[in-house]
Amino acid sequence: MATNTSGPGSHPADRLLARIDRLKAPVCVGLDPVFERLPDELRRGSDDLETRVSAIASFSCALIEAVCEQVPCLKIQAACFERYGYLGVKAMGEVMRAAEASDLEVILDFKRGDIGISADHYAASAFDPPTDETCSQPGWVTINAYLGADGIKPFLLRPDRGAFALVRTSNPSSDAIQERKLDDGRTVAEAVAGEVASIGSAHIGQRGYSSLGAVVGATKPQAALRLREIMPEQLFLVPGFGAQGGGADDVKPCFKPDGTGAIITASRSVIYAFEPGDANWREAVTEAAAQLAERIGIIAGLR
Amino acid sequence: MATNTSGPGSHPADRLLARIDRLKAPVCVGLDPVFERLPDELRRGSDDLETRVSAIASFSCALIEAVCEQVPCLKIQAACFERYGYLGVKAMGEVMRAAEASDLEVILDFKRGDIGISADHYAASAFDPPTDETCSQPGWVTINAYLGADGIKPFLLRPDRGAFALVRTSNPSSDAIQERKLDDGRTVAEAVAGEVASIGSAHIGQRGYSSLGAVVGATKPQAALRLREIMPEQLFLVPGFGAQGGGADDVKPCFKPDGTGAIITASRSVIYAFEPGDANWREAVTEAAAQLAERIGIIAGLR
Repeated sequence: MATNTSGPGSHPADRLLARIDRLKAPVCVGLDPVFERLPDELRRGSDDLETRVSAIASFSCALIEAVCEQVPCLKIQAACFERYGYLGVKAMGEVMRAAEASDLEVILDFKRGDIGISADHYAASAFDPPTDETCSQPGWVTINAYLGADGIKPFLLRPDRGAFALVRTSNPSSDAIQERKLDDGRTVAEAVAGEVASIGSAHIGQRGYSSLGAVVGATKPQAALRLREIMPEQLFLVPGFGAQGGGADDVKPCFKPDGTGAIITASRSVIYAFEPGDANWREAVTEAAAQLAERIGIIAGLR
Repeated sequence: MATNTSGPGSHPADRLLARIDRLKAPVCVGLDPVFERLPDELRRGSDDLETRVSAIASFSCALIEAVCEQVPCLKIQAACFERYGYLGVKAMGEVMRAAEASDLEVILDFKRGDIGISADHYAASAFDPPTDETCSQPGWVTINAYLGADGIKPFLLRPDRGAFALVRTSNPSSDAIQERKLDDGRTVAEAVAGEVASIGSAHIGQRGYSSLGAVVGATKPQAALRLREIMPEQLFLVPGFGAQGGGADDVKPCFKPDGTGAIITASRSVIYAFEPGDANWREAVTEAAAQLAERIGIIAGLR
């Protein structure tokens, strides 16, 4: 592996794959911090807005420290921070900075989907934030593809940043839209996948993967198999492993035979791998992250 | 019209329709403020982050004052504020408060689409913001329906708040997904419309409209006609009039024969209805809003 694939100016897929190779762990920890589930020691004290946001930021930074030697990638759920207004958004920038300092690849899971100058603005909000010390830049974002290329391309303009487009989500009600059959025999999700593959083909890195990836839920193995064929150049970001019900058999089809092509995400099963009163919660999180890396590394054939 | 339909505790569709009735103007001004297009007098001075955000907030508040007696509704484009990080988000709360104080119905155009607790968080970020003086609550939000009911229902839990789900967008590339034919002869957008109609039927107000509305672009009149049939209980939020190319013939099918059922949105043609150096830009904006209200009021048969 050329070392320049992990530098800040590199193609995002090359950079992410280099980080995965180093740890032999094609996994991502999903940071979805909810105040009520934080360790007791962080929920002590008064219960005003600033205290809550501060507790969430402290937890997030401790979590980054606890997992950064086990996993290559952190997915930050924007909703958990935006829920607290501008103070939450400010804290999210601080957390992103801590993740970058720990050499984690950061995916900002904000699922934006808009067109024209609004899409440009959302891309800028992630990749070209205002020159303020609390802002930072994720390597990737998640986006919604329902508006077509107009809603996707603005996120692919920077050569070292990428986006994962929602193709097949892991939630129960997604079938009502995504699994509907078209008159050509494909499903709606497969049509979206075709769009993603087509748009992404203009942005391929040295390892053969595009800076436009795809979100493919871990609870739909049959769908994943077909989507893997339609999108050979897409990295799959695969949520739903663990708490949402996806298991080893469900995620296996997301990988290619060489063990590349997918990043399996687990959130609650890692970040809340402790009882609220457990003083050793950091160690429990590290252990859960190591187990995730081990388990998925074996499934992918990297260990 | 009972006066209680415009109170803070009322059904959002009844409230919005009462405001439309009062002005005989089924229109919405889209507030998409971009620093480079502000009046010269607001762009003077230094060019740092805080000055930019402050200029955008000043413009937004002046614009609210300029249009609030002409139109019943303001759509705030979140991207224009989020582009400036937490300072922009803070300013957006202040602008929303000014809009409410001016008795405008506010639609927060943030197009979120997520599931589970993340959707709950996004709904809370709009409708149940932290108890901070700079935060405010829109009457409506826009959401993305690609994830199905799981991504929609969390926004319908408050009886006095509503959501417009993206069904058929006005951008050129939307056809690649939304206009594809299913094996039952419908388009993908029509299938989404069917979901929206079904979910929305549990949330109908006194006037027969749901608190779940639909975004239907003004550039697709044929599609609009079919969507009006599939979604008789949905208010249509119709962007794309004016600058995006939609005209009178394009928006007419969005209305029912009685002139209800649609809110036509214009952004740039109203909020930038002036030359940058024009000292009377406020008056020009008021005049453009009045013309929009007049033109659409006639198309709908309300004037």
